[in-house]
Amino acid sequence: MKTCIYELPFKVRDYECDLQGIVNNANYQHYLEHTRHEFIETEGINFADLHAQGIDVVVARIEMAFKTPLKSGDKFVCQLNLKKEGIKYVFYQEIYRLPDNALCLKAKVDTVAVVEGRLAAACEVLDRAFEKYF
Amino acid sequence: MKTCIYELPFKVRDYECDLQGIVNNANYQHYLEHTRHEFIETEGINFADLHAQGIDVVVARIEMAFKTPLKSGDKFVCQLNLKKEGIKYVFYQEIYRLPDNALCLKAKVDTVAVVEGRLAAACEVLDRAFEKYF
Amino acid sequence: MKTCIYELPFKVRDYECDLQGIVNNANYQHYLEHTRHEFIETEGINFADLHAQGIDVVVARIEMAFKTPLKSGDKFVCQLNLKKEGIKYVFYQEIYRLPDNALCLKAKVDTVAVVEGRLAAACEVLDRAFEKYF
Amino acid sequence: MKTCIYELPFKVRDYECDLQGIVNNANYQHYLEHTRHEFIETEGINFADLHAQGIDVVVARIEMAFKTPLKSGDKFVCQLNLKKEGIKYVFYQEIYRLPDNALCLKAKVDTVAVVEGRLAAACEVLDRAFEKYF
Repeated sequence: MKTCIYELPFKVRDYECDLQGIVNNANYQHYLEHTRHEFIETEGINFADLHAQGIDVVVARIEMAFKTPLKSGDKFVCQLNLKKEGIKYVFYQEIYRLPDNALCLKAKVDTVAVVEGRLAAACEVLDRAFEKYF
Repeated sequence: MKTCIYELPFKVRDYECDLQGIVNNANYQHYLEHTRHEFIETEGINFADLHAQGIDVVVARIEMAFKTPLKSGDKFVCQLNLKKEGIKYVFYQEIYRLPDNALCLKAKVDTVAVVEGRLAAACEVLDRAFEKYF
Repeated sequence: MKTCIYELPFKVRDYECDLQGIVNNANYQHYLEHTRHEFIETEGINFADLHAQGIDVVVARIEMAFKTPLKSGDKFVCQLNLKKEGIKYVFYQEIYRLPDNALCLKAKVDTVAVVEGRLAAACEVLDRAFEKYF
Repeated sequence: MKTCIYELPFKVRDYECDLQGIVNNANYQHYLEHTRHEFIETEGINFADLHAQGIDVVVARIEMAFKTPLKSGDKFVCQLNLKKEGIKYVFYQEIYRLPDNALCLKAKVDTVAVVEGRLAAACEVLDRAFEKYF
């Protein structure tokens, strides 16, 4: 990834594989989400706490290109970069298998903040935490 | 099942199967849970609404005996019976494959009501709804 | 959906909801996948059988736009249309909440056939089954 | 745990929490399974390879007592002990929250080996790997 501001290591769990013997596509969304949530925790923000405060960061749009499938026993890393585009917090995420660094997944995840049930033009908590990346 | 007070039909979804080509064990808990929640809806009780009212019905203990594994394409039915034992609402649940009625799973699920974060000796909402079964 | 060649009714299962109280994004991929697999079964093709024959239909790319979130108790329908674009079988899928028909999800799913581990320019089994839709 | 022969650290992933804001019960089975599979890997045995060799270790029975619920952000450890009882490989597993070591789950998981589709009285691969623990 050109600019990677955070990465999280993982290992495939066998229950994530389906009858084709490869990780089921939906689980990549789990990997991406968990990486985003761990990333925001490095900035002192917990996703469940945000929700309790009435702030929900929700995915508005996602694009994923599946390259090399992950299998039982595979280790991998999920990388992340973040941009603000209008009211959207856009996460660029890539998954690389270890140790050969084969690209497994390339994703673009558009998220928006919903505050007290309404789409927010700006979310101060997030903007303050992330402005150094914009 | 000797006494079945509710049953729900299902079909295996392929993403529920793991690399052994059979439904992953954890998904049986999902089938059991969904059946319980659909059952309580027939009594006018919604699980999410209960939670919003500060009432959480939680599983305290579960026993599951796995008999015949379910596979891609299988249809099945999840049956349920309910007893009150002390403060516990005990669900007896069985899963049968269709159309041959092979027994797939036999389970006993002990649940308790937690009201405002505290274990409740009695939960009026549930007792009123289910007393006809006790 | 302009041209819908298949649709499948669903009901949200509570375990599909996350701590925000709405269906977790990854589960929409499950709904889409299950609908595709049920669709191909109407043509006499079972996904697990295909795999056993050495044919794996895999997702190469997916785009999903999330509109209205689904919640506990919601019923919905997942619709599908299919086009062949080059070597890709492209599924256009939309999810509508019932009974108000609110659009919940709009997706484009590019799939390719992998035969004996190699990307297939054409897959006779699938082409024969689906040519009436192309 | 009195005798712990293996333990694996985890952190709750937010998608594992349900609308009650706690880890959904079925996910504990995932934690238990992943711990068993990582344990057998320390003995040089991979679950997917076993399956490819025609050996499936399947769960015949499981008992779980849920004590303290895990929440978003929680770290925990899953411990394991193993006994052979007749033809069964019985895993005793416990989950403790970190850093306070609150007991979250106590489980007994009876597994059996199915070789080429038939219940095996003895499975040499497993017996050789695990005899030091029996």
